[in-house]
Amino acid sequence: MAKRLVPLLNRVLVERIVPPSKTATGILLPEKSAKLNSGKVVAVGPGTRDKEGQFIPATVKEGDTVLLPEYGGTEVKLGDKEYQLYRDEDILGTLHD
Amino acid sequence: MAKRLVPLLNRVLVERIVPPSKTATGILLPEKSAKLNSGKVVAVGPGTRDKEGQFIPATVKEGDTVLLPEYGGTEVKLGDKEYQLYRDEDILGTLHD
Amino acid sequence: MAKRLVPLLNRVLVERIVPPSKTATGILLPEKSAKLNSGKVVAVGPGTRDKEGQFIPATVKEGDTVLLPEYGGTEVKLGDKEYQLYRDEDILGTLHD
Amino acid sequence: MAKRLVPLLNRVLVERIVPPSKTATGILLPEKSAKLNSGKVVAVGPGTRDKEGQFIPATVKEGDTVLLPEYGGTEVKLGDKEYQLYRDEDILGTLHD
Amino acid sequence: MAKRLVPLLNRVLVERIVPPSKTATGILLPEKSAKLNSGKVVAVGPGTRDKEGQFIPATVKEGDTVLLPEYGGTEVKLGDKEYQLYRDEDILGTLHD
Amino acid sequence: MAKRLVPLLNRVLVERIVPPSKTATGILLPEKSAKLNSGKVVAVGPGTRDKEGQFIPATVKEGDTVLLPEYGGTEVKLGDKEYQLYRDEDILGTLHD
Amino acid sequence: MAKRLVPLLNRVLVERIVPPSKTATGILLPEKSAKLNSGKVVAVGPGTRDKEGQFIPATVKEGDTVLLPEYGGTEVKLGDKEYQLYRDEDILGTLHD
Repeated sequence: MAKRLVPLLNRVLVERIVPPSKTATGILLPEKSAKLNSGKVVAVGPGTRDKEGQFIPATVKEGDTVLLPEYGGTEVKLGDKEYQLYRDEDILGTLHD
Repeated sequence: MAKRLVPLLNRVLVERIVPPSKTATGILLPEKSAKLNSGKVVAVGPGTRDKEGQFIPATVKEGDTVLLPEYGGTEVKLGDKEYQLYRDEDILGTLHD
Repeated sequence: MAKRLVPLLNRVLVERIVPPSKTATGILLPEKSAKLNSGKVVAVGPGTRDKEGQFIPATVKEGDTVLLPEYGGTEVKLGDKEYQLYRDEDILGTLHD
Repeated sequence: MAKRLVPLLNRVLVERIVPPSKTATGILLPEKSAKLNSGKVVAVGPGTRDKEGQFIPATVKEGDTVLLPEYGGTEVKLGDKEYQLYRDEDILGTLHD
Repeated sequence: MAKRLVPLLNRVLVERIVPPSKTATGILLPEKSAKLNSGKVVAVGPGTRDKEGQFIPATVKEGDTVLLPEYGGTEVKLGDKEYQLYRDEDILGTLHD
Repeated sequence: MAKRLVPLLNRVLVERIVPPSKTATGILLPEKSAKLNSGKVVAVGPGTRDKEGQFIPATVKEGDTVLLPEYGGTEVKLGDKEYQLYRDEDILGTLHD
Repeated sequence: MAKRLVPLLNRVLVERIVPPSKTATGILLPEKSAKLNSGKVVAVGPGTRDKEGQFIPATVKEGDTVLLPEYGGTEVKLGDKEYQLYRDEDILGTLHD
């Protein structure tokens, strides 16, 4: 059975969103439009620590759809699924419909 | 449909201004004069965080016309449009008529 | 007889978990699934020190199962057993069933 | 029409002073004496920000004649004129008659 | 006569423990088991200084058996004996029976 | 006419002392003894700034004879004279008879 | 006449101790035993400065016999004598009989 990961500090566990290669109505999408590097936040650590050791919470939360940087992130495999760990400050933004 | 991006921390989403290659009266502009690297601010994150985790707002705001540095910035494609993400402190200044 | 190591500052002594190469029911596991880099926390130092020299405790504790970074860590041999020392902030997260 | 630039943070917009290649009385100056790298301050940003986000004003002000470092500075073209942007802390000093 | 060294700041003077190449009962030890890099603390400086110049004492004390990092340390010869100077924060842990 | 330079921050304007190649009594000095790299402080900036923007004055003052580091410093020509600008913290010490 | 140097900040002026190549009783010392890199403190600056500009005194004082690092230090010649300038934090320790 897959283990559950609780990230430490301000690390954020992200499941990358694989963009559909066709639209809902079946039109093939050119390669370019598939390029948005986004993911779903699966788990968030307690945050960075201030000088007294108190936690400053991360800026993203579980369930957020986030825009990821092109480089960086640590690959993590839990059970059959692949995830990526990012530092909260490296996540570029949240995506909304 | 294009997603909307809410930048994190002090990131600023900018739509680059493509300079007209002719003046309004139709005179072709030499290449040099087109070189000003400017953009329109589309979205601004909540700001950097101080040592207690409070946000210090960015110095630019939505709608500002800004002078961009020659290098840096992260390309982001939302729907059909291309944008660039900058850190607030890397934006050189605001442009006014 | 093996010596006991008490780590200094926020160092964490970890015994790496060697993943089984077969499942409990005897099925051979492909190499990929064995790749999770995890360990058991054996000992934890008193923590980092703030500006007055007070200790800020580490975020992991003895007995935790932790996800380790791919690089880093210092090999330590105590008696016949091999361990690794990590800084608390370099440990990626804790693993739970 | 040329845009007006309001620098951000402690950036300083400078118009470089082109030294005369002749004295007022028409004597040609040797190349060496023309070498002082100076400029006129055209616009100054609000300053750097302290830890609470308050601005600490720059040390130079509009109208100052300043001594510029040999390297550094960002070229900016506004209309027909060329300017340079410096960080306040990189300006070497102010020049007085 | 050998001079006595009082380390400055958080420097720690260590006498390396040369592991016996035989056990007490005379069995030759293979090279590997001799590899633990440990030493005895001979002298400890007053500690690092905080922003007001007050000393924050080191975490090790005279007489401690310590685990040393593989690299680093400064060789010091006092009289006939060789010692090594380490910064307190570079010492990995204390060893106990 | 030569301009007067008022250094910014903790910059120090120094006029280098050219050592005599003969003693007062006419004895030629060997090259080595001429090597002390010293100068006269001509002007001192208001100092570095603390976190609130207040100036912390420099440690040298106008008229001091100072020992200069072998490397560093920025050459400045004011009128016919050559000077050098140093950061206060890079000046090694003051020289006294 | 030789100038007197008053070091700035936490710089320490040291006169290196040239180890005797013979013992008092005339026995030639092998090269190794001469290797201790020590010196006599001749002058000490007022110390480093805290954030308000107050001086934090150096940890060594005039007359101390100090153990010097193998590298670093700035050679200074005052009159006929050669000295070395070190930062207080780079001096390894004080030597006592």
